[in-house]
Amino acid sequence: LLTPEQCDRLDVVLVSPRNPLNIGAAARAMANFGFHRLSIVAPFAQNWMEAKSAVGAPDLLRDAKVFDTLSEAVAHCTLVIGTGSLDRRRPVQSTLDLPEAAGQLRRAIAADGDGKIAVAGRAAIIFGSEKHGLTADDLSWCHAIAVIETSEDQPSMNLGQSVAVCLYEISRPPQQQMPVQKVKGAEHPEHPESGQLDRLAELIEETMDQVNYKTRGARSENGEALRVLLRRLMPNEADLRRMMGLFRRILWQIRRQAGKI
Amino acid sequence: LLTPEQCDRLDVVLVSPRNPLNIGAAARAMANFGFHRLSIVAPFAQNWMEAKSAVGAPDLLRDAKVFDTLSEAVAHCTLVIGTGSLDRRRPVQSTLDLPEAAGQLRRAIAADGDGKIAVAGRAAIIFGSEKHGLTADDLSWCHAIAVIETSEDQPSMNLGQSVAVCLYEISRPPQQQMPVQKVKGAEHPEHPESGQLDRLAELIEETMDQVNYKTRGARSENGEALRVLLRRLMPNEADLRRMMGLFRRILWQIRRQAGKI
Repeated sequence: LLTPEQCDRLDVVLVSPRNPLNIGAAARAMANFGFHRLSIVAPFAQNWMEAKSAVGAPDLLRDAKVFDTLSEAVAHCTLVIGTGSLDRRRPVQSTLDLPEAAGQLRRAIAADGDGKIAVAGRAAIIFGSEKHGLTADDLSWCHAIAVIETSEDQPSMNLGQSVAVCLYEISRPPQQQMPVQKVKGAEHPEHPESGQLDRLAELIEETMDQVNYKTRGARSENGEALRVLLRRLMPNEADLRRMMGLFRRILWQIRRQAGKI
Repeated sequence: LLTPEQCDRLDVVLVSPRNPLNIGAAARAMANFGFHRLSIVAPFAQNWMEAKSAVGAPDLLRDAKVFDTLSEAVAHCTLVIGTGSLDRRRPVQSTLDLPEAAGQLRRAIAADGDGKIAVAGRAAIIFGSEKHGLTADDLSWCHAIAVIETSEDQPSMNLGQSVAVCLYEISRPPQQQMPVQKVKGAEHPEHPESGQLDRLAELIEETMDQVNYKTRGARSENGEALRVLLRRLMPNEADLRRMMGLFRRILWQIRRQAGKI
């Protein structure tokens, strides 16, 4: 199992889970593997109350944080991994098999012993609803998607079982872990938090508005494409500061020319 | 995932499962990872009917075989692996961490490409009831126990989740598998089936009776110790034939001296 400090740096996020039994099962798997930070995004109110008040519900379920949006739930995270099977659509994010994704998550939340990574980051693993999994919109907040290889005849896993398998893989003892390929950015503590990327995206969108790059009707789709792009680029914090400076400067110039300043 | 031929050589055995939802979840995990041979030992009749007739129950659940005893369920298997957490008792069998146990199971059901193992064996992985897991009696039919490392605060996993994690580990793609230490006997196709070991045990017990080695009152416990011993020794088929020949000879001699022949 991971150390309590490492477990404390990983959020398990369930997006709109429906079945109280599945929510309970997810929480139990977390307790089995020593994790305790559970976040629920946009739950169905009654099902959520039922899950929380179930007999024998672990403390971590009662202590779970509830968010309206996935954006808020992962705002503090420097690495966000979605989960899913590849039965229906080809996602735009890079997909990793689970052992590889688990390795990335372990790196993100670990300050290494030899001092090269001084400060550990925060990470999240995201599970979609039982009905349709994570949507393209949900996935646009993810740096990559972890895929559990399953049979073509029955690709879709039960939510509670999927959580158990993922947390099992993340918790593998070090001597059984695969060597992890260094993935761009993911392990750097200076990697920006999800919320910082969102603020950059807002600036860029505002700029696109100002220069009429896209009509307002295309904004929602546009926002998604932008989120995906920024997460694929994985800018570090210095990159981010420069990019935000640039777009602020562009906006200022445009407004000045328009006589608004 | 394993090949259909390999999947066809592994039985998933549930001993007295109680909750129909857990039985369904176990079956779903099997379907996810391509397995289809499910055996149920001594089910609670009503719960079992309920699980089988549930909406959306996979075919493998309706096709499951029902046995009165674990002995019958695994009689054809050359490698039997039990599952459990180590919270309550120290078992007499050797314990393996799950990746190691999964490797043994893969070896047992695989005919290797280079011809050293010409004939694949049959194997089983056994899960106990939700209430108390596998009993010492159940475990006496197992060559080893696979243990999933869990938190001390919440060591006991949900049945369906435990099945999912075990089958996930057994199905790992080869390039991610740990090198498996060759374990005595387990990978030899000439390794005897569980039922053959039971017949040897009967002969030995009969001999012990004849020579008054133990009083009849100690028989049940004695039988268990003997099963455990034979599985730890892992005799190959030739060993088994010799041992059976010896005990048959001893019994014949005793009966002749007693004037019964």
